[in-house]
Amino acid sequence: MTDQANEPKTAAASAGLRGVVAGTSTVSDVNGEKGELVYQGYNIHDLAKQSTFEEVVFLLWHKRLPRRSELDELKQGLSRYYDLPREIIELMKQLPRGSDLIDVLRTVVSALELYDPSARDISREASLRTAIRLTAQFPTIVAASDRLRRGLEPIKPDTRLNIATNFLYMLKGEIPPEHDARVFDVALILHADHELNASTFTARVVAGTLADMYGAVTALSEKRKIMGFGHAVYKTEDPRATHLRKFSQEMGERAGDTKWYDMSRQVEALMMRQKSLYPNVDFFSASMYYMMGIPLELYTPIFAVSRISGWTAHILEQYADNKLIRPRAEYLGAHNTPYVPIDQR
Amino acid sequence: MTDQANEPKTAAASAGLRGVVAGTSTVSDVNGEKGELVYQGYNIHDLAKQSTFEEVVFLLWHKRLPRRSELDELKQGLSRYYDLPREIIELMKQLPRGSDLIDVLRTVVSALELYDPSARDISREASLRTAIRLTAQFPTIVAASDRLRRGLEPIKPDTRLNIATNFLYMLKGEIPPEHDARVFDVALILHADHELNASTFTARVVAGTLADMYGAVTALSEKRKIMGFGHAVYKTEDPRATHLRKFSQEMGERAGDTKWYDMSRQVEALMMRQKSLYPNVDFFSASMYYMMGIPLELYTPIFAVSRISGWTAHILEQYADNKLIRPRAEYLGAHNTPYVPIDQR
Repeated sequence: MTDQANEPKTAAASAGLRGVVAGTSTVSDVNGEKGELVYQGYNIHDLAKQSTFEEVVFLLWHKRLPRRSELDELKQGLSRYYDLPREIIELMKQLPRGSDLIDVLRTVVSALELYDPSARDISREASLRTAIRLTAQFPTIVAASDRLRRGLEPIKPDTRLNIATNFLYMLKGEIPPEHDARVFDVALILHADHELNASTFTARVVAGTLADMYGAVTALSEKRKIMGFGHAVYKTEDPRATHLRKFSQEMGERAGDTKWYDMSRQVEALMMRQKSLYPNVDFFSASMYYMMGIPLELYTPIFAVSRISGWTAHILEQYADNKLIRPRAEYLGAHNTPYVPIDQR
Repeated sequence: MTDQANEPKTAAASAGLRGVVAGTSTVSDVNGEKGELVYQGYNIHDLAKQSTFEEVVFLLWHKRLPRRSELDELKQGLSRYYDLPREIIELMKQLPRGSDLIDVLRTVVSALELYDPSARDISREASLRTAIRLTAQFPTIVAASDRLRRGLEPIKPDTRLNIATNFLYMLKGEIPPEHDARVFDVALILHADHELNASTFTARVVAGTLADMYGAVTALSEKRKIMGFGHAVYKTEDPRATHLRKFSQEMGERAGDTKWYDMSRQVEALMMRQKSLYPNVDFFSASMYYMMGIPLELYTPIFAVSRISGWTAHILEQYADNKLIRPRAEYLGAHNTPYVPIDQR
């Protein structure tokens, strides 16, 4: 019984629920005028400079930063789940080689539920455990599916490494340079949440039916188009781009070759002059991933590796004070159309 | 770039978007006061009495009833896709035996995309083809996963049969009695659409991001609770229950044993007397499926076998005049929380 719409329809909302408030949240706040992004009260700039992805994951789920012992416990919890069930790796090996990695990710996450005996339990305690599993396993699924796509054996995760370092390690089979790992860690922080974007809203709608966390996360088949310039929310510079630009420069300087960074800056200046468009988070993250030698096909799955933290935070928030999200449609069709037998049509 | 929310937030909507109109549709209309359900202008009573599931599928997708040649073409199109790719059956055999069939269905649909070379094409023509594939293959997936769950080999679909008959055939391995097949066909008609229930709304949200049809359908991990009594929309008898009650009686009489039906009627009378609650669509469909010997675990998957027609109709409608569905959240968290180093927390 999920059909619940006894309330009378109110004003016809603008198409696509634009500007309509669907619910409340403390996970993140976006201020497009000021170019500000806040996670659970903390400005993204402070987090980018001083925090780590694991710390931000804790923040998103628990609404406060962890103490040392809590962070250690979370990291242990995550690393315990880095590895995938053997059956899942076998299943991945059988999927067609040319598949889009985001479709593989969605299929594997859906299948993962079948191997988690407590998947159905949506109590706060069990959901947090599922959130840990998903956040720990997204990087492993993405790295393994990239390896398989390239005809290589997946690399087993190294439980001594943090999520960012371990992901780069599983992609290439070698421990990444420390600076790359830190830069990638910050990229994960910057993409972790962004209020109710379409995928997060979907996750909340599914969670609102009290479907479990795997179900809600499987809904996230985000086919992001990487545009690079302009943003519907930010009227000024995207606060995330600021950090990624700096990293992009640093990486060029470290490699003794700033050609790629210089070119980016020229494109940026040109777009500002001709179209008055700011570069967005995708522009510099793409440039940064490119310099790290990460294949283009991975950019959207990497977004999911980060955003799973935000999706799960929103799902936890939805479960904590659940209301089924169920708007109405305005029916524009006919009524009482007479049924005409098929041979008289 | 799916973050689009430059519009200022308007009035705080009631929680869960209750009564808010999220968009327009002609697929179906529910009138709770009158106890009326309409698909594309046609009253559900006329369709239940005179139509077939395949005809209703055409109606939902094309907004009109088919001519004879169009119906024949659709039936051929559907039966051509009844069978699953061999790799998908292999994959299903490897999934854990005790899995919930709705989770298996979701995983298999997600994987199916990898075997459809035109999955990405969301033109009207290609989407209709995908809608045909999905509507044709849902019954096969559900029947095969039920067989596998019971330790039996899946039964190959029989392309000469319609969807209802073929589904019952694939479950049991024998052509069902004609009356069972017709009753099941009407059950599929009755469950085909019900405006924006949570799963349909989710499909539209995902389709609104221009994700393809597999992605939008995979979001539908509906964990329906079968309640049997009461309905948030209908203030009077659910118009679907009327038909199912009659079938339930007929089936009992044909079997020469109306004990089950009589018991249902007594429960119905009791609930009306004590709680003033009407039986809903689930009450009599459960009773009907039970009399047909269909296992309880299949009731929700059977709902999906029918509702895939409505989901795909809504997705087609969404693509035809797409607006990203993207409401806002009201941020209730803090701002400017100072970052305190971990050892000082």
